[in-house]
Amino acid sequence: MTPPLVYLDHAATTPMLPVAVEAMTRHLSGVGNASSLHASGRGARRVVEESRESIAGMIGARPGDVVFTSGGTESDNLALKGIFWARRAEDPRRTRILSTAIEHHAVLDPLHWLGQSDGADVELLPVSGEGILDLDALRDSVLRDPASVALISVMWANNEVGSLQPVEEVVALAAEHGIPVHTDAVQALGQVPVDFAACGVDALTFTGHKVGGPYGVGALVVRRDLEVSALVHGGGQERDIRSGTLDVPAIAGLAAAVEESVKAQHQHALRVAELRDDLVRRVVEVVPDAHLHGAPAGPLRLPGNAHLGFPGCEGDSMLMLLDARGIECSTGSACSAGVPQPSHVLLAMGCDDDQARHSLRFTLGHSSTPADVDALVEAIGPVVERARAARAR
Amino acid sequence: MTPPLVYLDHAATTPMLPVAVEAMTRHLSGVGNASSLHASGRGARRVVEESRESIAGMIGARPGDVVFTSGGTESDNLALKGIFWARRAEDPRRTRILSTAIEHHAVLDPLHWLGQSDGADVELLPVSGEGILDLDALRDSVLRDPASVALISVMWANNEVGSLQPVEEVVALAAEHGIPVHTDAVQALGQVPVDFAACGVDALTFTGHKVGGPYGVGALVVRRDLEVSALVHGGGQERDIRSGTLDVPAIAGLAAAVEESVKAQHQHALRVAELRDDLVRRVVEVVPDAHLHGAPAGPLRLPGNAHLGFPGCEGDSMLMLLDARGIECSTGSACSAGVPQPSHVLLAMGCDDDQARHSLRFTLGHSSTPADVDALVEAIGPVVERARAARAR
Repeated sequence: MTPPLVYLDHAATTPMLPVAVEAMTRHLSGVGNASSLHASGRGARRVVEESRESIAGMIGARPGDVVFTSGGTESDNLALKGIFWARRAEDPRRTRILSTAIEHHAVLDPLHWLGQSDGADVELLPVSGEGILDLDALRDSVLRDPASVALISVMWANNEVGSLQPVEEVVALAAEHGIPVHTDAVQALGQVPVDFAACGVDALTFTGHKVGGPYGVGALVVRRDLEVSALVHGGGQERDIRSGTLDVPAIAGLAAAVEESVKAQHQHALRVAELRDDLVRRVVEVVPDAHLHGAPAGPLRLPGNAHLGFPGCEGDSMLMLLDARGIECSTGSACSAGVPQPSHVLLAMGCDDDQARHSLRFTLGHSSTPADVDALVEAIGPVVERARAARAR
Repeated sequence: MTPPLVYLDHAATTPMLPVAVEAMTRHLSGVGNASSLHASGRGARRVVEESRESIAGMIGARPGDVVFTSGGTESDNLALKGIFWARRAEDPRRTRILSTAIEHHAVLDPLHWLGQSDGADVELLPVSGEGILDLDALRDSVLRDPASVALISVMWANNEVGSLQPVEEVVALAAEHGIPVHTDAVQALGQVPVDFAACGVDALTFTGHKVGGPYGVGALVVRRDLEVSALVHGGGQERDIRSGTLDVPAIAGLAAAVEESVKAQHQHALRVAELRDDLVRRVVEVVPDAHLHGAPAGPLRLPGNAHLGFPGCEGDSMLMLLDARGIECSTGSACSAGVPQPSHVLLAMGCDDDQARHSLRFTLGHSSTPADVDALVEAIGPVVERARAARAR
């Protein structure tokens, strides 16, 4: 008998919620391009607009703020390039983009490209040992020359260590100088309260497959009065900043997932935080020198994130040893997994190469159970022992 | 009793094939990011790579040529911008892009943007009265200064009037000067034989929802040795030219649709061409001054396309009158429907504004039946009469 899978990698992708699968499959056999004028087309358009309204309602935005995209990476690219291009076109002095050293590659890589190929002056600001943006450093950087800042992009919650960032303070600082703020909230939505209007950002990224919705769909929530240059040109869909035939079934699935995950957020957070705290406590009981990276469990950390260091082990070996026992986790961002290099997030937090390599990320989600924690606690002792032995050889 | 829907707008979007719905739904409840290293991640990756191999096999490409995207619009943008940027970076003299006046907006709009914002010198070459590229004009343009041409983009088949373009002749001309060729084959795949290697293009766009697959997924098929700059930066997926978490269920659905539609292409083409010929003949019997736009039915026209002019009518009125009777068609590209302007394709073919406005596109597909044609033939007389009366008022 195959033992049940112990999936502790919800931050990489979380299974679709049944309500989202249902909403999506209901529309898979539908017909009608949402840009067509006939009844089928208008029906498809209605599904899109009702989904947009539902999503807007759940995240404190207006329907017109929600621009559907193919997911988080595209939304981040659109926000960074689109806002940078538009702001610099308005005033050529605006060449600076300020961000953090711990952003996801979907932010870091477009920033790198803008710097290399498009004359942007990108500054990645430092973070504390807990993985939280150094606000003083950001303030100093802004004040050095506020008129030259095209935009600021600070993630809502870090995908590796789960640290929550001071987005409201960033917004307050930026507002003094009229600088727009983008936040990548891919890891935050459904895990912590996220309200677009209340937080005051100008643009916010989220994606389907991290909230129990489908892959291949996400949104950039962006104030209608903020100019954003398009990244993909064509039929003029989505306020003419994101052309392409609308993916009706995926958008319906996304709306169902956002609705359920946002409504359940408070209870969900309590439940997974309790599981996570149990996981950390019991793993450290078995492996006394294991230690949590990032902010302590509490208001500065995502409820489902346990990022642990295991001195003397290679994270990659541990991942494979756990995988052989049916326990799935990650050494960092799934998107750069496979590339054997120490995490840029841990390095920015002050870890050395060795510390950055001996770490594993366990992330809990809606399908996690106490049995998952039990299975990890049972396996972790022998796995650490074998990983240390392998390394000593 | 609601009469059955008569859907004659397959070129805008065609219903998903049952085999594609099945392949997609099979993976909707799966778990595992295709970039993750654990068993679930490797399983997801296997689905992606098997889909890539299947698609490559069906279209005469190598698996490594297939780059998954969010659909046709993104693929066209990636091809045009990505190849233009890379070719100009190699040699700054390469500033020209040659294309046709009848491309889809997913090609025309990025070309316009490259011209406006990025120094490209875009030339849209003329077409014949049948909507077929004037090869002499293309040749003259190339020969004027071959070294300055960054790329040529010519669609395989026009989306409005269904005319097939001389892609092989374009390739032969371009090859003499080492110029890469892109083709938007969104309307062609599954309708006519499409073989990537045999046709000799360097890059080819297709999309899921036109071949009976899902929305939100498509591909740019592009030779591995052609340099393409990325449009969306991030995790480095898809040869580092298209980052973003892979949409496993949609990719599986796409592969199933490509496999079935390509295998069925020959029989499908015979069947829908017969329906289409019947449709045109009988509509003209009822409305004697109605006439086919574009190439005559035959080897230069898509089998399922009937684009008809109805003198004295407004296309928009006819569309609505037919819609009221449960018959769905289009006045042109769905993506620009809703914007009341005459079709750029018909204007390029020499129609005047009036002729361009009195036209309707009927497109047949895998679910079309003789009863659909019967219904249209029955309705068209009274609809034309009412449309003419409305216009005369």
